[in-house]
Amino acid sequence: VDPRIETLQRKAAADAGVIGLGGGLPADAQFPRKALVAAFLEALSSAGLPALQYGWPEGLASLREKIARRLNGRGMNVGPDDVIITNGAQQAIALSLELVCRPGQRIGVDAETYPAALDLFRSRGLRPHAGPGAFEALYSTPALANPRGTSLDGAARAQLLARRLPILEDEAYAELRFDGALAPPLAATAPQRVFLIGTFSKTLCPGLRVGWLVPPPRYRRRALRLKHDSDLQSNSLAQAIVDHVLAHDDFDERLVRLRRFYRRRASRLAAALKRHLPSWRFRFPEGGFTIWAEADDVVDEARFLAHATRHGVSFDPGSMFRADARTTPTAVRLSFAAAPGPELEEAVRRLARAWSRRREVRSVTLPSPSPLAAM
Amino acid sequence: VDPRIETLQRKAAADAGVIGLGGGLPADAQFPRKALVAAFLEALSSAGLPALQYGWPEGLASLREKIARRLNGRGMNVGPDDVIITNGAQQAIALSLELVCRPGQRIGVDAETYPAALDLFRSRGLRPHAGPGAFEALYSTPALANPRGTSLDGAARAQLLARRLPILEDEAYAELRFDGALAPPLAATAPQRVFLIGTFSKTLCPGLRVGWLVPPPRYRRRALRLKHDSDLQSNSLAQAIVDHVLAHDDFDERLVRLRRFYRRRASRLAAALKRHLPSWRFRFPEGGFTIWAEADDVVDEARFLAHATRHGVSFDPGSMFRADARTTPTAVRLSFAAAPGPELEEAVRRLARAWSRRREVRSVTLPSPSPLAAM
Repeated sequence: VDPRIETLQRKAAADAGVIGLGGGLPADAQFPRKALVAAFLEALSSAGLPALQYGWPEGLASLREKIARRLNGRGMNVGPDDVIITNGAQQAIALSLELVCRPGQRIGVDAETYPAALDLFRSRGLRPHAGPGAFEALYSTPALANPRGTSLDGAARAQLLARRLPILEDEAYAELRFDGALAPPLAATAPQRVFLIGTFSKTLCPGLRVGWLVPPPRYRRRALRLKHDSDLQSNSLAQAIVDHVLAHDDFDERLVRLRRFYRRRASRLAAALKRHLPSWRFRFPEGGFTIWAEADDVVDEARFLAHATRHGVSFDPGSMFRADARTTPTAVRLSFAAAPGPELEEAVRRLARAWSRRREVRSVTLPSPSPLAAM
Repeated sequence: VDPRIETLQRKAAADAGVIGLGGGLPADAQFPRKALVAAFLEALSSAGLPALQYGWPEGLASLREKIARRLNGRGMNVGPDDVIITNGAQQAIALSLELVCRPGQRIGVDAETYPAALDLFRSRGLRPHAGPGAFEALYSTPALANPRGTSLDGAARAQLLARRLPILEDEAYAELRFDGALAPPLAATAPQRVFLIGTFSKTLCPGLRVGWLVPPPRYRRRALRLKHDSDLQSNSLAQAIVDHVLAHDDFDERLVRLRRFYRRRASRLAAALKRHLPSWRFRFPEGGFTIWAEADDVVDEARFLAHATRHGVSFDPGSMFRADARTTPTAVRLSFAAAPGPELEEAVRRLARAWSRRREVRSVTLPSPSPLAAM
């Protein structure tokens, strides 16, 4: 990510007057506060307080068992020891990458994809590339893509598998397909070379940083070793909390509610876009948190973000999602997940206003970089 | 770590009949349960529930500020933005290492040192080496060494600094020097090349995985980038909890209590060793959780651990702590921190019994490796 863009995003996030349509944040109103409090208190009443103590690198056995069971319900055939608890999906991607790619190699990605994966690939000296070509591995989100909210059909999935490459299969948003119609993971068909990656960040809350990795069996030992080297283990307390929530709440029912909630929000954003920005093109997403919209006019992307922020709205510019960081065609990812529903329409109104004055973008000056902008 | 040893340690940990003197676990009786519950409930009553939401890679600003203030009280001169919150000290070591070392290089370590650091160095293709030589970087625990519980005097510290190398300064146990007499970190003298590493794992609880890294300023941006690549950010909830505990409790008073508590336990273990294993050599530690003891007789280390486990006690064998993984001289690290006080004497009695029958060690058969033994 362009450090100028990160600086702008940090400024926007700190400004209560700006409605944020950037980021992959879930709606905080959907965090299961009560269930988490109950889980916490239960975790802290266990003798010996294991939720506060060290655990093993692979993570809490009962939580791994629950994850394995859920995956098996989708066509996988794994046991608890096949699952490694990670700090969200990001760490699962990072560990997998270290196992299959060397600096200088090429990794295949979608035309638009998850920015933190692209950042990671670049830091590791890999060349992410969209489109045809020779690759050493693929990063894919077949169940539900970020930012487009689309999923791969059977033919596209078969095509991916036919390439016979290691695949990092990121299912971060899979459970938030609006129709709940989840195909088996690619890992169910090719367990020997697919790294299955998931997280509770989008379905429970991201602050707990509980995700998982199911590496192919022959990589498991090395994956565990890498996890141990990286940070010994994931947060014991967070694991215990998620484990209790899964044990005592109906997680599938929760997913049904979440899908309905986010689909409603998506409709709201889509309607506002059609109304206020009719020249922008987008497809209604099949799930997830975001709409990817493209415009015909070319603007300086960072300056347009600064300009929009002054109009009281922020978003994620298109280049963040592209392997070659192209800024054209002009595109934005707009999240309908985090901003309160009634603000969505107002946000789009502001965006439309900023867009209508896009000739002013050239004269916008950018803020000096934040000392914390890392990208 | 030898996978046979890890397998034995896993078996021992799962066996309630075995008193564990292995590992760096704090006493669970010292976890500030009440303060943590209060902090959790407070964190979950903030509007917008930031403790459950995504945060920035560097971590919670108010927590970083408190850490900076504490470090400045010890001669540092840093602000909150110099501090990066990590998943315990281990991740801080891993991030620092990635910034200063390339595979194939040599990193200088103490004759005995922290096993997970050695494991990490080896995984990264580095050659940890104790003693004189040409190195690209040093890993050091000047304030308080693990496993020996010793600290470096002024001359040794000056000597370290005179080598003009990047230093990974691990202060994981620093605040648990029994006399509380903390020298300024090496980083205070050489902030341009010392990576200062600390954690709340030993002083609050390890399950929260909250540590910190203060990299030299010119590495800060890249350190942040690496942190983001690794797992986006550390656990928001755990950071909020620690932040609240630091704000509302007297952490220094807590440290005074902890030092007294662990010194008492150390005395108990030392007395038991003198009584039951008078032939073993050790020095009373200046702090921390462990006593390093050496014996004259040579035994097969892994088999002796298996043998001792059958006598109802486990420990960490000496090779784990040595850069060259030597098993001689026979040595063990014994923790006085985690086992309840009254069990310490019994544990040593069992160890002495196992030691007195060490001729039987040769005939001990080792268990088949755990599927999860990663080392």
